[in-house]
Amino acid sequence: MERTLGEIECSFTQQLHQWTEQFRPYSAQGKCAAYIPALAEANPEHLGVCIAHPNGQVMKAGEWDIPFTMQSISKVIGFMAACSVCGMEEVLNRVDVEPTGDAFNSIIRLEAHKPGKPFNPMINAGAITVSSLLPGKEPADKLEPILSLLEKILGKRPLVNENVFKSEWETAYLNRSLAYYLKQNGFLAAGVEEALEVYSRQCSIQVTAEDLAKISLVIADDGFDPFQGKQMIPRRITKVTKALMLTCGMYNASGKLAAFVGVPAKSGVSGGIMAAIPPRGRRGAPFQEGGGIGIYGPAIDQVGNSVSGLMVLKDMAEHWDLNIF
Amino acid sequence: MERTLGEIECSFTQQLHQWTEQFRPYSAQGKCAAYIPALAEANPEHLGVCIAHPNGQVMKAGEWDIPFTMQSISKVIGFMAACSVCGMEEVLNRVDVEPTGDAFNSIIRLEAHKPGKPFNPMINAGAITVSSLLPGKEPADKLEPILSLLEKILGKRPLVNENVFKSEWETAYLNRSLAYYLKQNGFLAAGVEEALEVYSRQCSIQVTAEDLAKISLVIADDGFDPFQGKQMIPRRITKVTKALMLTCGMYNASGKLAAFVGVPAKSGVSGGIMAAIPPRGRRGAPFQEGGGIGIYGPAIDQVGNSVSGLMVLKDMAEHWDLNIF
Amino acid sequence: MERTLGEIECSFTQQLHQWTEQFRPYSAQGKCAAYIPALAEANPEHLGVCIAHPNGQVMKAGEWDIPFTMQSISKVIGFMAACSVCGMEEVLNRVDVEPTGDAFNSIIRLEAHKPGKPFNPMINAGAITVSSLLPGKEPADKLEPILSLLEKILGKRPLVNENVFKSEWETAYLNRSLAYYLKQNGFLAAGVEEALEVYSRQCSIQVTAEDLAKISLVIADDGFDPFQGKQMIPRRITKVTKALMLTCGMYNASGKLAAFVGVPAKSGVSGGIMAAIPPRGRRGAPFQEGGGIGIYGPAIDQVGNSVSGLMVLKDMAEHWDLNIF
Amino acid sequence: MERTLGEIECSFTQQLHQWTEQFRPYSAQGKCAAYIPALAEANPEHLGVCIAHPNGQVMKAGEWDIPFTMQSISKVIGFMAACSVCGMEEVLNRVDVEPTGDAFNSIIRLEAHKPGKPFNPMINAGAITVSSLLPGKEPADKLEPILSLLEKILGKRPLVNENVFKSEWETAYLNRSLAYYLKQNGFLAAGVEEALEVYSRQCSIQVTAEDLAKISLVIADDGFDPFQGKQMIPRRITKVTKALMLTCGMYNASGKLAAFVGVPAKSGVSGGIMAAIPPRGRRGAPFQEGGGIGIYGPAIDQVGNSVSGLMVLKDMAEHWDLNIF
Repeated sequence: MERTLGEIECSFTQQLHQWTEQFRPYSAQGKCAAYIPALAEANPEHLGVCIAHPNGQVMKAGEWDIPFTMQSISKVIGFMAACSVCGMEEVLNRVDVEPTGDAFNSIIRLEAHKPGKPFNPMINAGAITVSSLLPGKEPADKLEPILSLLEKILGKRPLVNENVFKSEWETAYLNRSLAYYLKQNGFLAAGVEEALEVYSRQCSIQVTAEDLAKISLVIADDGFDPFQGKQMIPRRITKVTKALMLTCGMYNASGKLAAFVGVPAKSGVSGGIMAAIPPRGRRGAPFQEGGGIGIYGPAIDQVGNSVSGLMVLKDMAEHWDLNIF
Repeated sequence: MERTLGEIECSFTQQLHQWTEQFRPYSAQGKCAAYIPALAEANPEHLGVCIAHPNGQVMKAGEWDIPFTMQSISKVIGFMAACSVCGMEEVLNRVDVEPTGDAFNSIIRLEAHKPGKPFNPMINAGAITVSSLLPGKEPADKLEPILSLLEKILGKRPLVNENVFKSEWETAYLNRSLAYYLKQNGFLAAGVEEALEVYSRQCSIQVTAEDLAKISLVIADDGFDPFQGKQMIPRRITKVTKALMLTCGMYNASGKLAAFVGVPAKSGVSGGIMAAIPPRGRRGAPFQEGGGIGIYGPAIDQVGNSVSGLMVLKDMAEHWDLNIF
Repeated sequence: MERTLGEIECSFTQQLHQWTEQFRPYSAQGKCAAYIPALAEANPEHLGVCIAHPNGQVMKAGEWDIPFTMQSISKVIGFMAACSVCGMEEVLNRVDVEPTGDAFNSIIRLEAHKPGKPFNPMINAGAITVSSLLPGKEPADKLEPILSLLEKILGKRPLVNENVFKSEWETAYLNRSLAYYLKQNGFLAAGVEEALEVYSRQCSIQVTAEDLAKISLVIADDGFDPFQGKQMIPRRITKVTKALMLTCGMYNASGKLAAFVGVPAKSGVSGGIMAAIPPRGRRGAPFQEGGGIGIYGPAIDQVGNSVSGLMVLKDMAEHWDLNIF
Repeated sequence: MERTLGEIECSFTQQLHQWTEQFRPYSAQGKCAAYIPALAEANPEHLGVCIAHPNGQVMKAGEWDIPFTMQSISKVIGFMAACSVCGMEEVLNRVDVEPTGDAFNSIIRLEAHKPGKPFNPMINAGAITVSSLLPGKEPADKLEPILSLLEKILGKRPLVNENVFKSEWETAYLNRSLAYYLKQNGFLAAGVEEALEVYSRQCSIQVTAEDLAKISLVIADDGFDPFQGKQMIPRRITKVTKALMLTCGMYNASGKLAAFVGVPAKSGVSGGIMAAIPPRGRRGAPFQEGGGIGIYGPAIDQVGNSVSGLMVLKDMAEHWDLNIF
């Protein structure tokens, strides 16, 4: 006898609950990011997990409704927004799609590899370049396509946490260094201050784990939003985006996520993880038609990834056979 | 009215033929590798393409039966063989799984990133380390698990091209440099000369495009060989292998293959490409249950990948919707 | 019969004239720096040479009175001024004295060598750090010790070429990148903009070849100005300065100057060379008691050194046995 | 009343004795090199100091007669021997004269700076290249010019410590890595094994502090041996050699030695220091006509320089005004 949709959903939610309880204690192995006060004040024991199913259900557990800033996860949105409004070729003229193995804030490669084109949009140098490309002169204009894209998907305009933005802005010495280097080499398409303001603001956009699940469901489903029945992002852009998430999404542990989890995912130092399950499951698998995962666990490891969040994602991929390989 | 299996196969084969004809002329944009005579003597206009279907069919076109040496493609076999006989943990103690963005023969990272662990088994430093780990003292003993694995899958023992091996062996200055560096840092599990002989011999193993298609079908199908109905390689090892192929398999163009083709693939400077289609196609797609691709086109581009071969692979992925993202 | 002082001076001057005539044509092998208009407009055929003798004579030839901006030569003055007013220990806490072999504007080492202390004050990263250390809040205050030191030696306050400063300031992307990187790592003792303004202004100080000869005579003579009979700079500081000029003064050709010329010298992209002859000549040598050399030849080679100027310096060192080794 | 030569010598010797007593206890701040047994077994409290005066006197104190292997000090002899027999131009075609700031055994620069020419003959890559250039096929032939040069100066043929050689030879993984890299790039003029054997043997040549003083006196005096009244090495070669000692002779502390001591010197991990005082002292200074210094103190610091030896050299330079700047 087949189970009803409600029963299935219920069993998924129970599973999520179990994971949050099981992995929450491991947060103690990590620490909240401390380079700006707002991040340091997060509750390290929080762990929220959401999964959005293409049938319209969003299963939730733990602190799924705690708002936090996107940080590096915004690089995914920035890339998709820039490709959508400027054309992907224009974006790829200024940023490559190769993983590096370097730290997210490394500058060495910009000097060592002529002509200094940033290697991919998931490291800071690449993301700042992408921000510089967005149309408009004022930072607010440039930010608009990012906020619009999120608004279209989430049905509400996300907030920029001004407090976090201000802190980021004032301490962004390394990003300024990267931006001036890019400017020198001709890769920045705007003034350094404008590009950095856009980048710092996009990092400060506030979301919840639920929001991430909804966004990643759209990415997973090749840009189609099953809730609203609309194509939100061109299919081709989301394919490249998922590849970038898999190859470069988890800082210096990207390769390990690809090898041992096998789900395209992007993390941020605020403790968020956004993972997209392509609609290519094996016959009979629960998320055969794809899905979106949003996780929030602010205690991060040395590489910058949520400790408990990564554990949930790994178990989830095994339990539901989500590994794309 | 449904088409018969024979009709389907026939249409696939026709398609392969069309591709070989269409892309063969582009070989002129590349050049055969010239660092050893045997490679330089290949016919740059050759283009062979095979695709193995889990139902037992192997479709073929062009010069699918020309033998060539595996070169870097052997890194995939070496990694799987070492993980199978030594345990994956033992292998991963000595080699990481992170992509680098560096050239395949780069040594910089071994010095710059303490303690000098090679970043992944698809670059030379990592592959030599893996070769050193294989059991046995003599190179012949160490090579055995690699040849055995291929023999099990192909039903015949592959030949080592002694001519190519000798040339490789005599000119392998850079690999020797890498190997001694690894030895210094304690990552090599055998003598330098032994490890290098194994590595050079495995690079000199001779295959055809058909062989590559059969091998990659097994990798694609999580280690199960549908022809013989047997598990050849542990599932977990093939998952990691496919992830490594996707993130690091195509030299410095690995990221671009992931982004624009989306199929785990490994290339060699002899012009071979081996690509594995995970059994995760969308409902109704022709290779929904997976498949193995073998390509041979000896004219390579500056990065080291077959020019015409890459074009076929790209078209194939689009035409049959093979992109895993 | 001994020659009179006047006769000797006359013979020196004749020699200088001969050199300017002999080497001026070689300017055609170089090009004026072109990154800002004011430098590009220099006359590439100019060649001025001065040598100051501790007995009070300054011999001159060619375009010895053409004013030009100090550019990198100002790094020497900035270092001595900072050591004089802050104490050498304080300065050496923030900048090392090791040559690098890297380009003057390289950033790689700041990331690759923890904790990112600049390797020496003759590369841009080190010089900007030194500028940041000077006392005072406003750039004008910080610049004061540099201008004062020059005024004391030259007997006139040198001008800052506002035109050049403005151009430098507006195009200083790479220096900004370096400065923000230094700020991030805690080596900058002032705000980035303040430090950069001081550095850009000091680069824009205008001098002639004669001025350089007078300044370097003081450096050569351990800080003592034989013209005015006064100690201008502490002896210890000038020893370190001469060592830095010899090991790091001529960009990536510093080692070659030490090996084949053997005189402490500092060059700038405007075509100036300032060389100090320590008072340690062999008995009977003409500049046994030391001397100061100022050269101006705006056509520079690929490394950044004056083509004709370097030729004069080399011949001079051989002819008068100035090599300190 | 003038002091007699004997009185002067006596006072110098007393001064040397005082230094050995004063600085010997600081050996405890260092440690004997431990990578091969023979070095680890040295007595860390040993401190021997010799100074050779051009008038034929050799003043001695402490353990001046303990034999030890030259190690990196042999790079100086190898360079002079190769320049003498092959011509300096030939040598400089294959090795540059620029300091690097990198560790003596670093390989990064060989890859990062095309075409991979070693930066100077005082780092391992450069020294191995120089060894490869020596005439003859067999290592013994190649070593001959080095041994001959030493024999001519010392009046006895120095021994190669076979025990040390064997240990060096067996553990020289990093040098092998460097040598194969150089071979790959075409800079090695002999087989890798031959070049390495020459280099390892020259490192194992046994000397005393007294020998070093005699050798460096010849280098100091532009190749002239005042004891034998003969030109031993062409003047031009010794000029370049002294410049290389000053800019690159003390590993990563070369710049600091130039800045704070100011005497061309080369150290080895066995604890030797060989310093050459150019005959350019100020009038009235004790070593106005030059001199040679030999020091042995096997406890080395983290950079690789003798702890107590460096202290003696520094005090000596200050006390006798030896700083060349």
